[in-house]
Amino acid sequence: MHAPVEFADIAADVLERVKRRAPRVHCITNTVAQAYTANILLAAGAVPSMTISPEEIAAFVGGADALLVNLGTFDAERRAAIAPALDAAAQGGKPWVLDPVFIERSPARARFAHNLVGRAPAVVRLNLHEFAALGGGDATGDAAARFASQHDTVVALTGATDVVSDGARSANIANGDALMGLVTGMGCAGSALIAAALAVERDRYLAAVAALVGLGVAGEIAAADARAPGRFAGSIIDALHELDRARLRARTRVS
Amino acid sequence: MHAPVEFADIAADVLERVKRRAPRVHCITNTVAQAYTANILLAAGAVPSMTISPEEIAAFVGGADALLVNLGTFDAERRAAIAPALDAAAQGGKPWVLDPVFIERSPARARFAHNLVGRAPAVVRLNLHEFAALGGGDATGDAAARFASQHDTVVALTGATDVVSDGARSANIANGDALMGLVTGMGCAGSALIAAALAVERDRYLAAVAALVGLGVAGEIAAADARAPGRFAGSIIDALHELDRARLRARTRVS
Amino acid sequence: MHAPVEFADIAADVLERVKRRAPRVHCITNTVAQAYTANILLAAGAVPSMTISPEEIAAFVGGADALLVNLGTFDAERRAAIAPALDAAAQGGKPWVLDPVFIERSPARARFAHNLVGRAPAVVRLNLHEFAALGGGDATGDAAARFASQHDTVVALTGATDVVSDGARSANIANGDALMGLVTGMGCAGSALIAAALAVERDRYLAAVAALVGLGVAGEIAAADARAPGRFAGSIIDALHELDRARLRARTRVS
Repeated sequence: MHAPVEFADIAADVLERVKRRAPRVHCITNTVAQAYTANILLAAGAVPSMTISPEEIAAFVGGADALLVNLGTFDAERRAAIAPALDAAAQGGKPWVLDPVFIERSPARARFAHNLVGRAPAVVRLNLHEFAALGGGDATGDAAARFASQHDTVVALTGATDVVSDGARSANIANGDALMGLVTGMGCAGSALIAAALAVERDRYLAAVAALVGLGVAGEIAAADARAPGRFAGSIIDALHELDRARLRARTRVS
Repeated sequence: MHAPVEFADIAADVLERVKRRAPRVHCITNTVAQAYTANILLAAGAVPSMTISPEEIAAFVGGADALLVNLGTFDAERRAAIAPALDAAAQGGKPWVLDPVFIERSPARARFAHNLVGRAPAVVRLNLHEFAALGGGDATGDAAARFASQHDTVVALTGATDVVSDGARSANIANGDALMGLVTGMGCAGSALIAAALAVERDRYLAAVAALVGLGVAGEIAAADARAPGRFAGSIIDALHELDRARLRARTRVS
Repeated sequence: MHAPVEFADIAADVLERVKRRAPRVHCITNTVAQAYTANILLAAGAVPSMTISPEEIAAFVGGADALLVNLGTFDAERRAAIAPALDAAAQGGKPWVLDPVFIERSPARARFAHNLVGRAPAVVRLNLHEFAALGGGDATGDAAARFASQHDTVVALTGATDVVSDGARSANIANGDALMGLVTGMGCAGSALIAAALAVERDRYLAAVAALVGLGVAGEIAAADARAPGRFAGSIIDALHELDRARLRARTRVS
């Protein structure tokens, strides 16, 4: 087990590497979350790209360091981009994150997501409803660990407390603020930040923990002076941009 | 006729119900306005969803409490989503709002909007140019009442003063601030807020008045400390999130 | 050569005309940048529209005063909209701006952009990587002038220093702030602002300089009180909205 201070240092190490190396993260994501996701990545030091054109998606993923596949707006062209993107990621050995947004609302989307779990995502980032719809069961650490083992992936289950598990190791992250749930695209942006972390940290479990700790601590700092969602949306970007080891050590709460 | 204090209380009642019940609002809306619309809905306590995929639109609308159809970016897939969405809304008895953005710029779009008026929208939210292009005539309360009666709908005509009419009843809402016109998607977000109000208030006329009063009062509060559009865009979200009966009573101006 | 004070006055003249005439700018642009681009245009006093529907694009461009073609998200429908939009612009004698985003990442996109250079853009706005991918060479004033002459266009090459050239005249604009690179869509919004300037200034070289000076000075003013990208994104919109001749004269740095 890692003590909280260790997790703070792990998060600081990973986020510093993102800032220094400026990894390219290609995002197939919904149009609602695109701008916010790009701004979160830029604030963390990563370089976002977002095309979904079939003719160029392989070139973009080939030139990227990590990939995000988010199912938020499930239009035909976005869907068609996923297969060539995953082929390019597999060929180039690039890690990718699956974010199966709102799959509990539509059986077609849930089936699609289920198939994508078979394409070896490094991390699956989702909430409790989505986890249930993916057959994960309830939102305990045990259920997450079981799902992670069974599908050889890392589960990053976000909510009031985030649970991250790779089957063998599990972490509960108590950082964050309720205002994060009132900014559209926040979960999607968190998934993109995990992708950025995967680009600089080969241990996918630690990468997921680092990204969620970073975003959660930034959320707490932002909530300290922006008590409503409009200003908070900008404040958390600023807090993430200015995040450092001292702030992470002061606030990281992982068990 | 309702006195201003009554309208303030009606708006407070409706907006409190939105906060408490967290209605799901499915939005077929333009990509420019999606994120801002989602953030306005979240700030008011509603739950937005925005897919346009033909395979899942019926499931999403079936699981939602109200629907918004906004014509702002008129791409083929978005257009194709509208018919199954309206079928699902009709089948489930869900209220829907039509926002015929920019129809004065394109005859094809105006024809499309005209046909949608025949699909029984609970409310049509639009500006003066759009109202004229829809055959509504000039922007007087009489013209709005006539259009509402003729098409059995509620007209919510927004501008310096908003006019809401169901044919029998008409209200002039003097709340709001000119800065609202300098934030892209504000009108679209207002239409989405009307949809959220319709989900918790069966009197569609009062729902439309409540939503526009709420947004207008939030705009005035935001303009009091953010005098330019960049910061104002966040401030009005915050003011809407923090809106309460006292603030509504102090500011509501309806005649 | 224009002295800095002259450039400040040219920028002030052009931006005042944008505010007074409220030109319509139609933007075929990527979904990531749409909302931010629209808000920058609104803050400057222009009126944005963004449809890409083939049936109505000609009507929208025909009713607009200038056109932006941005290749940021290269989806099929967006691409299909470009040809009829350029036909309508040519027919109506409307100036248009090409923004060949990320063409260095994809050969298909670079070829597409190269063909568009042959369709007589008034201005090509791009960064160093994109300029190289377009065959422009390195980022010196000489290379920009050569490219501009050869293709009978104005090159607006943005970076730490912006270079604008029409072949005969070249300007180096030292205004701006590094935070501008951390807000997604800032470059795209700059291209849209150039389009707005072209709608009110027939000298396309001066229009491009005026827009980039305006945005750069706004960026410096914003950076003076918002030191991180989240709040900065709103602050630069406010600074652009409140920009006046005095502020431009105090800060314009063009050589």
